[in-house]
Amino acid sequence: MTAARYSKIIEVLNQRQPDLAVVTDSVHKGKNLSAIIRTCDAVGVLDLYSVSENDFFGAHTGTTVGAHKWLNISLCKTISEPLEKLKSSGHQIVAAEVAACSKDYREVDYTLPTVLIMGAEIEGISQQAQPYIDHSITVPMMGMVESFNVSVAAAIILSEARRQRENAGYYDNRRLDDKTFNKYLFEWMQPVLAQYCQKHQLDYPELDEEGDVADPNWHQQAIGS
Amino acid sequence: MTAARYSKIIEVLNQRQPDLAVVTDSVHKGKNLSAIIRTCDAVGVLDLYSVSENDFFGAHTGTTVGAHKWLNISLCKTISEPLEKLKSSGHQIVAAEVAACSKDYREVDYTLPTVLIMGAEIEGISQQAQPYIDHSITVPMMGMVESFNVSVAAAIILSEARRQRENAGYYDNRRLDDKTFNKYLFEWMQPVLAQYCQKHQLDYPELDEEGDVADPNWHQQAIGS
Repeated sequence: MTAARYSKIIEVLNQRQPDLAVVTDSVHKGKNLSAIIRTCDAVGVLDLYSVSENDFFGAHTGTTVGAHKWLNISLCKTISEPLEKLKSSGHQIVAAEVAACSKDYREVDYTLPTVLIMGAEIEGISQQAQPYIDHSITVPMMGMVESFNVSVAAAIILSEARRQRENAGYYDNRRLDDKTFNKYLFEWMQPVLAQYCQKHQLDYPELDEEGDVADPNWHQQAIGS
Repeated sequence: MTAARYSKIIEVLNQRQPDLAVVTDSVHKGKNLSAIIRTCDAVGVLDLYSVSENDFFGAHTGTTVGAHKWLNISLCKTISEPLEKLKSSGHQIVAAEVAACSKDYREVDYTLPTVLIMGAEIEGISQQAQPYIDHSITVPMMGMVESFNVSVAAAIILSEARRQRENAGYYDNRRLDDKTFNKYLFEWMQPVLAQYCQKHQLDYPELDEEGDVADPNWHQQAIGS
């Protein structure tokens, strides 16, 4: 465990955006899903919901170069599941699609709590998602081909979200609450120990300034021996 | 041949940017190269140089959904070849790489004649390219992983170039000269006939307002029978 790694994790958690989530709607191609995951990590998204009715999470067939470890990824069988939760907690639902009512992606205010839905390239966004959608957006194209690769479109839209949030100072101070921050700090720094604690229903112990467990007698005390 | 297709081609050629080129430096993965080609088409790039020392053009292993037909793609064995030509015709050379001197990609003025070099994810930009480079740029990352997928990085940078060029009105009026415009108009509308003309060293005939050959006797006259 190095102090450098610990401070890198703190730096990244300080820039994570608790109110910018991504939902992938039946994006099964591993390379696309993996590229979306890398982009989420890079722009500070923390929560990604991967919707697939047959419970398939394709990212393992592509390469995330480890980025999946730094996101909170939830697998969902239906898109209503995450959208119901996020809508009722005050997020606007923004769907990237080609529709008559789609507006330019730059017209949305991404400093509001936002969920971005990315659909599969052919099928688009599920019918089930339609009642939740606040904004249908599209990335304007000036070419002969009418659509971007889905991971490319996600990157273009999320870069705009980041630009707006940078201008609003959203990356300057920590935006996660203490509980969430400490939870991820422990899990990212001590993944094996975190699993152990979860399995045995133990609270995570405090870490010292290098990211090691502060109290050498923690384990004995925790298990009550 | 439909009039709709003809006017689509004219519309796209009217937005093509003769002074915004892309060089891929040993990007061999088909999916990445294909996604870059789609993005080039979408933002109005006309000239793409694919550098590969073993003459390999990987895009056929991915899917460009036809976008390669709407770019002028040159395969090059060395990167000096396109850079020498483009530098001497007044282009600034912008290389996307992770280097100590790299600046934020948004600090470059993309309204100047520009070549964007995208390197392979591991190897980066060739040593051979270094003497030509005016700006080394990088897309800032706020995550644990230190790099974007190459096609994602290309899309983010080219979207910024497009944004600047949109603001400067570069997509409002045709920027190709008459000769270049007419050449591509004919080749995109009449690809088979264009090949025939090239093979037999015939000038391209004029097209009517629906994109068909205007003079029904053109062929007989052209071959002098």
